[in-house]
Amino acid sequence: MTERLVVIGADAAGMSAASQARRMRGPHDLEIIAFERSTWVSFSACGEPYFVGGFVPRIEDLIARTPAEFAARDIDVRIRHEVTAIDTAARRVAVRDLAGGRDLSVDYDVLLYAAGARPLRRAIAGADLAGVHELHTLDDALALRRLVDARPRTAVIVGGGYVGLEVAEAFMHEGIATTVVSSGPAVLRPQLDTDMGERVVAHMRGLGIAVQTETRIECLTGSDGRVTGVGCALDGDEAYFPADVVVLGLGSVPEVRLAEAAGIPLGESGAVWVDDHLRTRVPGVWAAGDCAEAVHRVSGQAVNYHLGTIANKQGRIAGINIGGGDEVFPGVLGTAITKICDLEVGRTGLTEATARDAGFDVIAETFDSTTTADYWPESEPMTMKVIADRASGRLLGAQIVGGAGAAKRIDAVAMALWNEMTVEAMVNVDLSYAPPFSSVWDPVLIAARKAADARKER
Amino acid sequence: MTERLVVIGADAAGMSAASQARRMRGPHDLEIIAFERSTWVSFSACGEPYFVGGFVPRIEDLIARTPAEFAARDIDVRIRHEVTAIDTAARRVAVRDLAGGRDLSVDYDVLLYAAGARPLRRAIAGADLAGVHELHTLDDALALRRLVDARPRTAVIVGGGYVGLEVAEAFMHEGIATTVVSSGPAVLRPQLDTDMGERVVAHMRGLGIAVQTETRIECLTGSDGRVTGVGCALDGDEAYFPADVVVLGLGSVPEVRLAEAAGIPLGESGAVWVDDHLRTRVPGVWAAGDCAEAVHRVSGQAVNYHLGTIANKQGRIAGINIGGGDEVFPGVLGTAITKICDLEVGRTGLTEATARDAGFDVIAETFDSTTTADYWPESEPMTMKVIADRASGRLLGAQIVGGAGAAKRIDAVAMALWNEMTVEAMVNVDLSYAPPFSSVWDPVLIAARKAADARKER
Repeated sequence: MTERLVVIGADAAGMSAASQARRMRGPHDLEIIAFERSTWVSFSACGEPYFVGGFVPRIEDLIARTPAEFAARDIDVRIRHEVTAIDTAARRVAVRDLAGGRDLSVDYDVLLYAAGARPLRRAIAGADLAGVHELHTLDDALALRRLVDARPRTAVIVGGGYVGLEVAEAFMHEGIATTVVSSGPAVLRPQLDTDMGERVVAHMRGLGIAVQTETRIECLTGSDGRVTGVGCALDGDEAYFPADVVVLGLGSVPEVRLAEAAGIPLGESGAVWVDDHLRTRVPGVWAAGDCAEAVHRVSGQAVNYHLGTIANKQGRIAGINIGGGDEVFPGVLGTAITKICDLEVGRTGLTEATARDAGFDVIAETFDSTTTADYWPESEPMTMKVIADRASGRLLGAQIVGGAGAAKRIDAVAMALWNEMTVEAMVNVDLSYAPPFSSVWDPVLIAARKAADARKER
Repeated sequence: MTERLVVIGADAAGMSAASQARRMRGPHDLEIIAFERSTWVSFSACGEPYFVGGFVPRIEDLIARTPAEFAARDIDVRIRHEVTAIDTAARRVAVRDLAGGRDLSVDYDVLLYAAGARPLRRAIAGADLAGVHELHTLDDALALRRLVDARPRTAVIVGGGYVGLEVAEAFMHEGIATTVVSSGPAVLRPQLDTDMGERVVAHMRGLGIAVQTETRIECLTGSDGRVTGVGCALDGDEAYFPADVVVLGLGSVPEVRLAEAAGIPLGESGAVWVDDHLRTRVPGVWAAGDCAEAVHRVSGQAVNYHLGTIANKQGRIAGINIGGGDEVFPGVLGTAITKICDLEVGRTGLTEATARDAGFDVIAETFDSTTTADYWPESEPMTMKVIADRASGRLLGAQIVGGAGAAKRIDAVAMALWNEMTVEAMVNVDLSYAPPFSSVWDPVLIAARKAADARKER
């Protein structure tokens, strides 16, 4: 008898799962239907700022696979179909066909909940003015690009996260005078510690991007229905920034409303609880991606990061298991990388702040180095921070800020972290060296040595 | 009572050891004298091709520390002093003061043998002609740079190793028509498998560097005492390449003659045998660097690589142990990186060929990818080869050839290899992603997946 897999959300996690399930089970054994509320499936959300900035010329470049390509593999993707309710007892979903204007009821044997994340919003007066946008979906990217094409002079980006900074780069690239407003003491919090975030802020200012830290947006002002500026509070004072365009990047939250309504339990992180096979607590229902939680391999805590890497991996493993396999999702480190113009940023594991919060007695060492041998003509500064457990020497995390070639080094650190290495064991690892690429002791090894030395000093 | 440490060879290994020993023990406890045959100490041999090519303008840029800087730390470095004999019973070395023209006899309590490597030579008619050079010491680099300054039109580089290729880049950069002659089927053997080496050859040819494989140099021709060309044998036929400059890069061998004469035992690799603390089999005598062997962490075999990374690490650990510490040198992977113009090359662990030789039932997967997201405007091709053990799934090694950002990824693989990961375990490691840096599945993860899939297919 043919079983039916219904997938809610046809993006990274959902379509990775569908593809794997199809790889494991033929169409006569498993029917696969994926419902997607938007018109886009399987796209690179991380590429959106680069479309807005004109680095990537065509929105189609961000599409990994189209519904037609999935159809060729016997995966039925229905765009503009919004799942409105899940009946887990009857194993049935209610679906609204947004284009056709009708309601469907679809039975399932297996359900994958891959509804993703949605932008965090708070009530801000004026948020409905023209020229005010989020950047979450490809439709948002298209709308923002249209705003850029209208050649605005000034922009304010509210929020100093990955997306905010990448949009700042995009706007810079398009010649728009840009201000980033962050409520915290720096940017990229909590992904970076404040001292490292401050280095990013200093660099951004050097590039001509205004950064307002410790500043809270209060209202948006407008004229003729179009945004004209942003009113902010800082240090009990007030500030006003003119803006032809405002991008709200306040972060995102897991899209769990449908799951919650259906009684699918959430975990401590606020995302859908899953076991190490990506099963929820409800029989026949699996979850993966931004809406699902994951175990942090260092802290052991339940976390919920919205990263394409994790969504793809969880989706793949959910799909293998739905297809009859037996694979464990081994957890996350929160490894991430970005760039702001010529400055690269990488991070993995716990920050000094989150390590303390998790109860570790922390060693944190920050040092300046270079991306190549110091005499190499293209050498650029690079700062690395390493966090270790004082008692055991175990590596807990690292952050890198620097020039070309700096940030991808975080992968070597992530690999060490994954293997629960001590900083002492890292010192002698046989990493590569040539003058155009590093000093003879790669900064990753120097970082480990600094932390090991700091342990001895106590 | 003050002990005396005598160091033979004042380069990476020797001076790393001296520095660490000094860090552990004060000058009243340990006197340190380092004898160096040449005029140069503590220099970056890996930087020499870049000085020859004019990328690094001053030879002094390649000097990490001068004798005066060591003197300030109570380390007595004596250049132009050649140790000519070691009496291990009397704990005494005979030293020739090359500048002063006198002989010394110096007692030691502890001896570090760090004599390095010397160029491999074979009898070639015409090798003494003007315009024919090796590239080993800084004096060689200065001499080659003088030849380049005389604006030669044509050059032949004999040997397709790291140094040969880096010199080819240097010559290209200086507008010299350059031919690389390799006796093997490709270049960078045995560091790369032939299929990967062939990709390097193809790229070099695309850059306008002539590469002659399977070609053996027979003689050098000259006129008025200056070299004019190279006569070669290929496929039973003969070939002749005109050359105003010839660089002989036939590889290097450990400098063990002095040790052998003193009865310090060598290991299977032909280099000085050392235990995991860098002690030789002779009481009071330690060895480190290019002249000492090391255990390969994957094959378990004794190997002898001439890499600055290993020399520095062995020197550091020998110095700590001489200073009274207790550190183990944990072995090597042979991780290395280089570039030829815009092509990057990285490698770690065993190749397919050396893995077979070591008795493994090998899986080898080669695949083409990109350095960034494929839609990123600066995306460049990148080929990765991964080698794994069929029975256990254990990673054995990897090779990368590709554009900017490709090769340093080898460090993440080296870190996995160091931790004896299986390719299955590597698939889900939380590595970083953003479109300007990689696809959402980094090629390192895809490589692991390809190898894991290949295991399943059997």
